[in-house]
Amino acid sequence: MPLTLDKTDREIIRALKADGRMPFSAIAAQMSVSPGMIRQRVQRLQDGGVLQFVAVTHPLKTGYHTMALIGVKADGHRLQEIARQIAAFEEVIYLAITAGTYNFLVEVTCVDNAHLLRFLTEQLYGVEGVREAETFIYLDIVKEIYAWDPPASTAEEGTTPS
Amino acid sequence: MPLTLDKTDREIIRALKADGRMPFSAIAAQMSVSPGMIRQRVQRLQDGGVLQFVAVTHPLKTGYHTMALIGVKADGHRLQEIARQIAAFEEVIYLAITAGTYNFLVEVTCVDNAHLLRFLTEQLYGVEGVREAETFIYLDIVKEIYAWDPPASTAEEGTTPS
Amino acid sequence: MPLTLDKTDREIIRALKADGRMPFSAIAAQMSVSPGMIRQRVQRLQDGGVLQFVAVTHPLKTGYHTMALIGVKADGHRLQEIARQIAAFEEVIYLAITAGTYNFLVEVTCVDNAHLLRFLTEQLYGVEGVREAETFIYLDIVKEIYAWDPPASTAEEGTTPS
Amino acid sequence: MPLTLDKTDREIIRALKADGRMPFSAIAAQMSVSPGMIRQRVQRLQDGGVLQFVAVTHPLKTGYHTMALIGVKADGHRLQEIARQIAAFEEVIYLAITAGTYNFLVEVTCVDNAHLLRFLTEQLYGVEGVREAETFIYLDIVKEIYAWDPPASTAEEGTTPS
Amino acid sequence: MPLTLDKTDREIIRALKADGRMPFSAIAAQMSVSPGMIRQRVQRLQDGGVLQFVAVTHPLKTGYHTMALIGVKADGHRLQEIARQIAAFEEVIYLAITAGTYNFLVEVTCVDNAHLLRFLTEQLYGVEGVREAETFIYLDIVKEIYAWDPPASTAEEGTTPS
Amino acid sequence: MPLTLDKTDREIIRALKADGRMPFSAIAAQMSVSPGMIRQRVQRLQDGGVLQFVAVTHPLKTGYHTMALIGVKADGHRLQEIARQIAAFEEVIYLAITAGTYNFLVEVTCVDNAHLLRFLTEQLYGVEGVREAETFIYLDIVKEIYAWDPPASTAEEGTTPS
Amino acid sequence: MPLTLDKTDREIIRALKADGRMPFSAIAAQMSVSPGMIRQRVQRLQDGGVLQFVAVTHPLKTGYHTMALIGVKADGHRLQEIARQIAAFEEVIYLAITAGTYNFLVEVTCVDNAHLLRFLTEQLYGVEGVREAETFIYLDIVKEIYAWDPPASTAEEGTTPS
Amino acid sequence: MPLTLDKTDREIIRALKADGRMPFSAIAAQMSVSPGMIRQRVQRLQDGGVLQFVAVTHPLKTGYHTMALIGVKADGHRLQEIARQIAAFEEVIYLAITAGTYNFLVEVTCVDNAHLLRFLTEQLYGVEGVREAETFIYLDIVKEIYAWDPPASTAEEGTTPS
Repeated sequence: MPLTLDKTDREIIRALKADGRMPFSAIAAQMSVSPGMIRQRVQRLQDGGVLQFVAVTHPLKTGYHTMALIGVKADGHRLQEIARQIAAFEEVIYLAITAGTYNFLVEVTCVDNAHLLRFLTEQLYGVEGVREAETFIYLDIVKEIYAWDPPASTAEEGTTPS
Repeated sequence: MPLTLDKTDREIIRALKADGRMPFSAIAAQMSVSPGMIRQRVQRLQDGGVLQFVAVTHPLKTGYHTMALIGVKADGHRLQEIARQIAAFEEVIYLAITAGTYNFLVEVTCVDNAHLLRFLTEQLYGVEGVREAETFIYLDIVKEIYAWDPPASTAEEGTTPS
Repeated sequence: MPLTLDKTDREIIRALKADGRMPFSAIAAQMSVSPGMIRQRVQRLQDGGVLQFVAVTHPLKTGYHTMALIGVKADGHRLQEIARQIAAFEEVIYLAITAGTYNFLVEVTCVDNAHLLRFLTEQLYGVEGVREAETFIYLDIVKEIYAWDPPASTAEEGTTPS
Repeated sequence: MPLTLDKTDREIIRALKADGRMPFSAIAAQMSVSPGMIRQRVQRLQDGGVLQFVAVTHPLKTGYHTMALIGVKADGHRLQEIARQIAAFEEVIYLAITAGTYNFLVEVTCVDNAHLLRFLTEQLYGVEGVREAETFIYLDIVKEIYAWDPPASTAEEGTTPS
Repeated sequence: MPLTLDKTDREIIRALKADGRMPFSAIAAQMSVSPGMIRQRVQRLQDGGVLQFVAVTHPLKTGYHTMALIGVKADGHRLQEIARQIAAFEEVIYLAITAGTYNFLVEVTCVDNAHLLRFLTEQLYGVEGVREAETFIYLDIVKEIYAWDPPASTAEEGTTPS
Repeated sequence: MPLTLDKTDREIIRALKADGRMPFSAIAAQMSVSPGMIRQRVQRLQDGGVLQFVAVTHPLKTGYHTMALIGVKADGHRLQEIARQIAAFEEVIYLAITAGTYNFLVEVTCVDNAHLLRFLTEQLYGVEGVREAETFIYLDIVKEIYAWDPPASTAEEGTTPS
Repeated sequence: MPLTLDKTDREIIRALKADGRMPFSAIAAQMSVSPGMIRQRVQRLQDGGVLQFVAVTHPLKTGYHTMALIGVKADGHRLQEIARQIAAFEEVIYLAITAGTYNFLVEVTCVDNAHLLRFLTEQLYGVEGVREAETFIYLDIVKEIYAWDPPASTAEEGTTPS
Repeated sequence: MPLTLDKTDREIIRALKADGRMPFSAIAAQMSVSPGMIRQRVQRLQDGGVLQFVAVTHPLKTGYHTMALIGVKADGHRLQEIARQIAAFEEVIYLAITAGTYNFLVEVTCVDNAHLLRFLTEQLYGVEGVREAETFIYLDIVKEIYAWDPPASTAEEGTTPS
């Protein structure tokens, strides 16, 4: 059952979206509340699975020059098992099961095209039940965000938990 | 020109992958170096665009029940401009320009299917130059990571910067 | 051999299209004939397979939030057997064998996307001979009718049966 | 906000699925309750949009020999308006807006192939904004149902309304 | 309204399938009837549109080295007009309006690939409303027949017309 | 090695295109030559495989209401054998091996849609090595010719053979 | 009208396939004929358009890291003009007009993916009449040859020209 | 590690692009340097894999009338092995492994369509692991070049090697 998020929660999320390591004291000062309250709220959001803090590395700057999304068709009656096997590969940073033309959408980061080819033939196609894979190589990434405001309808003012 | 990453950089990245708010003192203790050195290294990685710290919110737990990837075909000679307009929509959390069947792959989070339909008709298709859009609704997300180890070849031992 | 439908039959069908439980006496009054005649005609239409009366439930209002049409490609020489097996699943409310890209079009109602995923992997893909399935999730239903007027050419005035 | 359905509601729905004109007294006898209670319950289900009673005509027996599903691609920013125009045609008995390859799925009943061709060229393609249409002619209809049991999770025993 | 064909008609058709210029006297002798009766029957079949006699030329032997089927997508609301314009080209020997991926299937005979290219660019694509054309060049023709036996159900013995 | 066709040959072909049973004497009169010469020329064209005379039956008028082209994908290394097996079916009136999306294009005439479905499941899909079939049902036939003029380049005036 | 190639021509072609700058004296010694004869023959093959000598540069070794084949759909009635415009771009090293799904197949060499993206948006899509382009990025080149033996049937021994 | 190319290298490449057998003395005269220097530079470019000299034969003029590109889908985990087997066929002049709809793009030259059909069924489809092949027959070749200027960024003036 999802947490109910109030106005304070949303302000905290908004602050941390910009800088995931912003000190709680700074957020507290901004919002004119006590740092302890911020800490308590953040803990509640983390415990409820609403929020997590991650370090994001930049593919190009860490030596990964080829990124791609791969649409995969696989044996339908073993979809979840096949998904887990593909997800276990180091090159895979994202895997969604989808409705539509493909069974999976798999995002990968590779050092270069030769690495991508090795990944496809030696790893992805080596998973039993993978039947077809269409690879969309990225030419440019225009937007990438990690957090966003909860929709208005889920934030009911006045029901702050503490 | 990408930074050269040494063994220390890679250990720091590995520690922060798991917890983006891990105190530098804790990392320092783990690695038996001074917290100041960790702070210096992290600063260098951030300045070099290698690393950033973000808060990640969970779509389902914040009231977003429909996620989808949308493959978009658009007027080719205005690709970058169209990409920027689509990227500006709040529902869009990821947009890559790709080689292959589609010009863009656009990831969106919506409150529900009705919201997705409104997004498609009122926003995405409203952008001049968008011609066709194929929507792949997510049935499950099996993997999602934000940071990964730099490939071995870029980490040259013994050339630590400080 | 199809029944010949006259003007009276068509008026009765038109009345019942709007309300499947309309009392025969009300229809009779509207048409200035005896209720017995209406009853007799309706019986003849039902016996001839022209008309049936059904209760229709509303998916959303009964807890089904995900409807989809699934295009299925299957082993051709066992089409009818495979069709029967798929049709036996509770989630399936419509199945047509078609000419074109797919062998079957299958309409399903599911509680939510997770249910749809379970249906696909555990049931549909579990049927031997199912090879590929493309799922079109409904974003909105704009029209749905159950009865319509017979085409003019089949209704020959003056040949009323009783 | 959907009605909560209890065990009694589900039994009534199950009875009417089989015969939409079954007298309430017969259902009441079957369930050992008063006919008035059945009437009251059915009224509540109808008022809540859960249930409706319709007459269903059989296409083949009423002179319609060609049924088809048409996948339509249309101008995205006018989807809903175009959908309404198509839905207004007499031949159209079902229209859903979908995610995936097509914008709409449109089910039609026609007297014969020549009628279908006239429908396509004179009506469907005549709607401004319709760009492409792929027609899947039915070779056989294997299953078609109109009502189904609400999922277990929405039926909470003991919270009967009256 | 189609003619009713009896056993005699079918024998005559079978004889002429093999040799369209077979003398009526030879058919009459084979069937032990009078030549006049054969002539009468053939006339009736021709007048009824059941049978025609044609000379068939062999593409390869008359200098046509490239045959192809072209799937055409065209503006839907002018389908029949566009079909007529395409049908008027000399290279076109067959044109059917179809349900499915294409609006038309067009069979052409060309002298060589260069002729086919000229036909496509200067003629087919020159027709206003033609939007896309996919060309399937023939590598071999394995079967081609012009006449076949009427299905058993339409041949009712004993109802011979004369 | 193809025959060389001269002006006379082409006039004869043109005359017979319109009526495959036109008496040689009539053609001779039209062209102011002797009937014997026409007979000789026609014989040479038939012997050379340039010309044949066939009776063509009309599908609709002989009880065949469903015509379709079927694009077939089959096991590539047995293409010719599979083609021969499919060509042997009575319903098949044309079969070409093609370059492009499909391996074969197969034209069939069936009594009705139910017959087409039986043909697909019991015959076509029953051939070992047939993998996929996409069926394009004809809505209308706009043009169908059997003979056409040889291209100018193959007709060299002055080299008449007799 | 193509040259007739004899056994000597074919031996010369075979020798030059391996090394396009092989001295004529070396070929002559190998074949035990005079260098003048080799020179004469090569001149005749060059004049007849059978043979040309080119320097081939290696994309990767000259700084081109992204090669791709692009399938292009374009306005049909201007195909040849559009082809000429695309062929004029520096990045294009090969352009064929084809039958099938695409109108053109265009091979390009680019410095990197960013260059490819600029080529697509600023050049290819800037050509009026280009409608759609699907890009297939090369992951590896396994074979590439420039000359091959003439087929046996065109080489008639004993008809050497000099 | 690629060679660094200077202005002199690029001038030499430009000269040889036009005529692969141009004498080094002629290039030297043009550039006002010694023939020995040209010879040395060319040798270095050849040794470094930057440049090769080939004889190119013209398909049409050597009796090859059917050229095609074939998109092949094959068993993914054996891609490289399958690629090598296909590349070994004489008809294959180019084979690239690609990202996208097909696993390979294979260019072939055949004597005629019948030869292409034999190649497909007896050779290509005979390779174990080849699953699907789509053939695009060439109607015209508009551009074909073999060498091109290195991109500006790789040519650094003043770092000539000798």
